[in-house]
Amino acid sequence: MATVVSLEEKRRAGSGIDALLRLCAEDFAKVDHILSAKMQSPVGLIPELASHLVDAGGKRLRPLLTIAAAKLCGYASQREDHVKLAACVELIHSATLLHDDVVDRSLLRRGKPSANAVWGDKASVLVGDFLFTRAFELMVDVGSLDTLGTLSRASSTIAEGEVLQLVSANHISTGETTYLEVIRGKTAKLFAAAAEVGAITAAEARARQGGSAARDQRAQPERRALESFGLNLGIAFQLVDDALDYGGRQAKLGKELGDDFREGKITLPVILAFHRGDSTEREFWKRVMETPEAQEPADFQHGLDLMLRQNSIHDTMERARHYGAVARDALGLFPDSVLKRALLEAVDFAVERTH
Amino acid sequence: MATVVSLEEKRRAGSGIDALLRLCAEDFAKVDHILSAKMQSPVGLIPELASHLVDAGGKRLRPLLTIAAAKLCGYASQREDHVKLAACVELIHSATLLHDDVVDRSLLRRGKPSANAVWGDKASVLVGDFLFTRAFELMVDVGSLDTLGTLSRASSTIAEGEVLQLVSANHISTGETTYLEVIRGKTAKLFAAAAEVGAITAAEARARQGGSAARDQRAQPERRALESFGLNLGIAFQLVDDALDYGGRQAKLGKELGDDFREGKITLPVILAFHRGDSTEREFWKRVMETPEAQEPADFQHGLDLMLRQNSIHDTMERARHYGAVARDALGLFPDSVLKRALLEAVDFAVERTH
Repeated sequence: MATVVSLEEKRRAGSGIDALLRLCAEDFAKVDHILSAKMQSPVGLIPELASHLVDAGGKRLRPLLTIAAAKLCGYASQREDHVKLAACVELIHSATLLHDDVVDRSLLRRGKPSANAVWGDKASVLVGDFLFTRAFELMVDVGSLDTLGTLSRASSTIAEGEVLQLVSANHISTGETTYLEVIRGKTAKLFAAAAEVGAITAAEARARQGGSAARDQRAQPERRALESFGLNLGIAFQLVDDALDYGGRQAKLGKELGDDFREGKITLPVILAFHRGDSTEREFWKRVMETPEAQEPADFQHGLDLMLRQNSIHDTMERARHYGAVARDALGLFPDSVLKRALLEAVDFAVERTH
Repeated sequence: MATVVSLEEKRRAGSGIDALLRLCAEDFAKVDHILSAKMQSPVGLIPELASHLVDAGGKRLRPLLTIAAAKLCGYASQREDHVKLAACVELIHSATLLHDDVVDRSLLRRGKPSANAVWGDKASVLVGDFLFTRAFELMVDVGSLDTLGTLSRASSTIAEGEVLQLVSANHISTGETTYLEVIRGKTAKLFAAAAEVGAITAAEARARQGGSAARDQRAQPERRALESFGLNLGIAFQLVDDALDYGGRQAKLGKELGDDFREGKITLPVILAFHRGDSTEREFWKRVMETPEAQEPADFQHGLDLMLRQNSIHDTMERARHYGAVARDALGLFPDSVLKRALLEAVDFAVERTH
């Protein structure tokens, strides 16, 4: 089973999400089971391509967030909607990954050839659509309009963020504000929604078990707290991802180092280096980002040197720590528990990870 | 306003959906209004690209089906859910068109350059995703799990049909059964769902207006009848489309004639010509369909000649008439009315149209 291996690997690596994975392991295995079931189709290419992506593992932080959030809010129901919603979140994420790799022309994903590299762009676009629609079918199955609304709004914001990223690609004058809008949309919003639906489903379960929704005074504060936790964690996570694209090691990162550079993708390390640089440095950044296809082999190393000089990778990590701190504080209203501590450790992992 | 022009054009052309358009004109204008609103985004490329596609018009048969089906089932509610659901159907359809044109590398759509030809594949993939998510947001707004389930299942079947089409592309041995599965999935299922949600929303409106859903004995038969009407109309519609790709005139068709041939897409005219042909003819079809990139300029005309000899375009139209007849009979349980007659005329239009 892919997940078991993946869990084992994470334990060996001793990463900061160990505790969280352990606490959610039972539910997490069920998520995996649902994912496998939802990827099935008489059209053989669909499960083949989808399982190539999903079995590659990845951190599965998003479904983990849904389960952890539901548990933190005391979810207890035989319906196990939290598990289904976690699977929805991962299906949406998988669909966006397939489309992203087509848009970015990425050839590697999590250390393996990307689906588009193996089966082509067409198959990736269509199987992405399929996984996305399956997520919605599953949400309908859960039957909560509130979670449906949250996840459909998040999906729409993701697509909007991706388009914004596309139109600001190769524009060296893109500022930190636009960059933040992009990563809020393309990454953080799904983290936020993943955590939020955990809280919603817990409140709905309480309401079904006899509580009056009107008197459920925990529901709204918990929901807003977990949304904020997810959003800020997601921003931190993406900032670190963008820093690692200039500082990680290929084997660990599982994707090509310098991908963003070669695509002329304007991420914070570049934005800071450009804005802090002198006119020669700005000329360099303008050239390599606006016409990435004309980059010289030595350009990447030169870019790294300029980033080092301007402290831009380091300060991107600093920005990530800021959002990590906000995420941590968002959990303030929850009483201390093993699970809460595991979630706080997950923030540390997201901010301090090296891969 | 795009729709007004489009309606005018259709009136001038004297097509068989005139009566239907006239009967639904008021609601149809509202659909247009919602579509415009749902395409808005602070990210300017989104409304620009989306309106390029949506304003090009097209027949808008799918949202028309939703409105007509709701009216036929006596829909009367100030909530106007039928208008919103019709807009959802068109948003889903628009999203699939954007992705289709990327997958098929089509450069023309409805006589204008396709969105991917103007803005590139990346933008088309992402804006397609955006429109799709907007459709789901709007469905959540309507708040009916039954219509959400119907449209999400249909969307999933569409994606499955598209993948099946992709994997059977260029395989000359694809038979009529697989072809039918493809067009049921990629086209007919959305026609079916479009009509079905019209019936569902009418039944739900009756239930809200005091009727007991349990006692609403019209609901299920009407729903099944309209689903069948839509499904069979959709199959007929796609069969005619595939025949027209070999027999229409470019100006009227609004897309490049022989697109399917040049892509090696195995549609019924080819399937029949191949299966009825002698060994020389089969060799020809095998060559041009399996390696379309190596086609000679004269191949298309030769293909047309073979189809003429084997009667395969004509018989594709005959098959379409069969499904048209089934669609017509599906409406049998509805009493005679102006609207019912208009729907029957729309079937004639779908089957007998030359563009």
